[in-house]
Amino acid sequence: MIRVPTLFIDPNRCKKNIRKMAVKAIRSKVEFRPHFKTHQSLEIGRWFKSAGVTKATVSSLKMADYFAKEWDDITVAFPTNILEIEIINRLASKIRLNLCIENIEVLLFLKKHLKSSIGVFLKMDIGYNRTGIDTDNDFLINTLLDKTRQIPLLKFKGFLGHAGHSYQCRSKEEVEKVHQKSKKKIIQLKAKHQKQYPNLIISIGDTPSCSVSEDFDEIDEIRPGNFVFYDITQNIIGSNELSEVAVAMCCPIVAKHPKRNELVIYGGGVHFSKDRIKDPKDGIIFGRVAYKKSGIWGSCVPRGIVKSLSQEHGIVSIPKEEMKEYEIGDLLWVLPVHSCMAADLMKEFYTPEGNIISMMT
Amino acid sequence: MIRVPTLFIDPNRCKKNIRKMAVKAIRSKVEFRPHFKTHQSLEIGRWFKSAGVTKATVSSLKMADYFAKEWDDITVAFPTNILEIEIINRLASKIRLNLCIENIEVLLFLKKHLKSSIGVFLKMDIGYNRTGIDTDNDFLINTLLDKTRQIPLLKFKGFLGHAGHSYQCRSKEEVEKVHQKSKKKIIQLKAKHQKQYPNLIISIGDTPSCSVSEDFDEIDEIRPGNFVFYDITQNIIGSNELSEVAVAMCCPIVAKHPKRNELVIYGGGVHFSKDRIKDPKDGIIFGRVAYKKSGIWGSCVPRGIVKSLSQEHGIVSIPKEEMKEYEIGDLLWVLPVHSCMAADLMKEFYTPEGNIISMMT
Repeated sequence: MIRVPTLFIDPNRCKKNIRKMAVKAIRSKVEFRPHFKTHQSLEIGRWFKSAGVTKATVSSLKMADYFAKEWDDITVAFPTNILEIEIINRLASKIRLNLCIENIEVLLFLKKHLKSSIGVFLKMDIGYNRTGIDTDNDFLINTLLDKTRQIPLLKFKGFLGHAGHSYQCRSKEEVEKVHQKSKKKIIQLKAKHQKQYPNLIISIGDTPSCSVSEDFDEIDEIRPGNFVFYDITQNIIGSNELSEVAVAMCCPIVAKHPKRNELVIYGGGVHFSKDRIKDPKDGIIFGRVAYKKSGIWGSCVPRGIVKSLSQEHGIVSIPKEEMKEYEIGDLLWVLPVHSCMAADLMKEFYTPEGNIISMMT
Repeated sequence: MIRVPTLFIDPNRCKKNIRKMAVKAIRSKVEFRPHFKTHQSLEIGRWFKSAGVTKATVSSLKMADYFAKEWDDITVAFPTNILEIEIINRLASKIRLNLCIENIEVLLFLKKHLKSSIGVFLKMDIGYNRTGIDTDNDFLINTLLDKTRQIPLLKFKGFLGHAGHSYQCRSKEEVEKVHQKSKKKIIQLKAKHQKQYPNLIISIGDTPSCSVSEDFDEIDEIRPGNFVFYDITQNIIGSNELSEVAVAMCCPIVAKHPKRNELVIYGGGVHFSKDRIKDPKDGIIFGRVAYKKSGIWGSCVPRGIVKSLSQEHGIVSIPKEEMKEYEIGDLLWVLPVHSCMAADLMKEFYTPEGNIISMMT
């Protein structure tokens, strides 16, 4: 019996999301190297294996270490943290490890301290302006390529970009535009360097672009992550239908305020995170309420939203006519605004059958 | 050696914050029942004991259970979750447990299922509009008081409010105004009910009001929590000086972008949470950079801010002239926007002496 905020997964939806993206990768003739930071779970990783996936992306060396138990080809899509050289060396000695490089300092450090061979992606800035090298910075790119060639344990794999600015889009058309612009930036590097590196990989991978676009021409690898669960943010961006969201939080109702059509739930920032999104109709929201349906959640309650979160409280706004449906002590289903952050906080998933799927701790 | 994002505590500052508030409580002739949701640590709890504190506040029954190992008088300042009756009964049998009530449903449930005596606070809405009973709703208040009297295991303790709207203030004057207005709402209940309940307690407790005001006339108990560490949010509200912030995150620098005067740190939403605050000068920020100073952090770098957070990345903006001070592989000190959320995510504190202070897991 559920007594406290609990994160549920719908394994059917989740496996469907995985298959759909795996099929799209095949259809688009790109390698599929999904990002595992969203689920952080060996068990869910196995669902990817069942869909034919053999390569993974992670966002930290700790996560690489965790998945290295069952995966032997992992890219860490995060600027290399030289302070973790010990774990880099340990992983490099046992799996195919790819790191992201964007500066000379890290290459010089690896030259001195690396003990086994690794693959190197040059991290490119394809418009997000978070991290990476400008795609037109030929001087830095060539310097890093030259230096990489001089270090025998480093094997240049290709150019890696992340169009994280697609998260600002609010329609499929906008996502497609961002995708085309980012893609154009990174594929020009293929034309420039393919002669010297015939097998170089162009790797991109935000969930919005990978969900919306059908054009992966000149792209060699995709790395989406969030699509495994999707969430309210991706729905507002245009990546998915609400019926594809594969996780939801089940929260006890602890108070009712009929005068303002609000419920108070046990479920706050320590469960959902404080991530928020501006919904076109409902303003800033922290989650969306779903009806219950045979032991799991069903469709969304129109205008049913989490309007604010404290550390443990969630304040839920419900249409007046629906208020009578909810009693103190009932459980309320909430679709998270950002499933990656909610999963990271909750550390495990419950299935409708009563199983627990564990995550990296 | 620090290799990954690590939350440090300055025990001296922390103990100073505790003593200062404990002294203020004595001076103001109010009981001090600090909220422990910020630190969630038995060890830090012992620092409160050293300052003469004997009563605690928590925000969940799980936290009450954790602190019940060393504390025998605990108020759960959260609407009672009837689904956790088992843990309520277990705690009620061994410590003085106070719960918050704001509706008849919970009283009826407790009448049926409670096995040991507990204290009851009526949770009042003193202007925050998050949860609680309107202070002028005499009908509901009297109904709940009548019902409480009929249940022998319940002992009415008093009225409890939380002026969480003080977090919207941006100066000491604004905080004082909110405090006076909220205080006025709740102390009128004392006048109304003291005849019947001579020992009734008026309990309030947001950190801004408790830090800024000196007027606790007619108040019997304060329950501030965040003051134990303070943070950037409280500093912008006007509660504390930056030199009183007692926790900071130590983060590896993984990339530099001199063209836009930015550093990329290993330290993201899974470390800080995604809480944000609008700084009057610097706009929306997720943290503030501090200089390093003999193994811990010193004063803040003017205009040095965390401007955005992804799951693992932090993007730090630094004045142009300071950029040369930071190299890849260095550690950067960041004061969190919201210390409660950062502590909850990090699950332990490092001291400058190299000790680890554990938290509830």
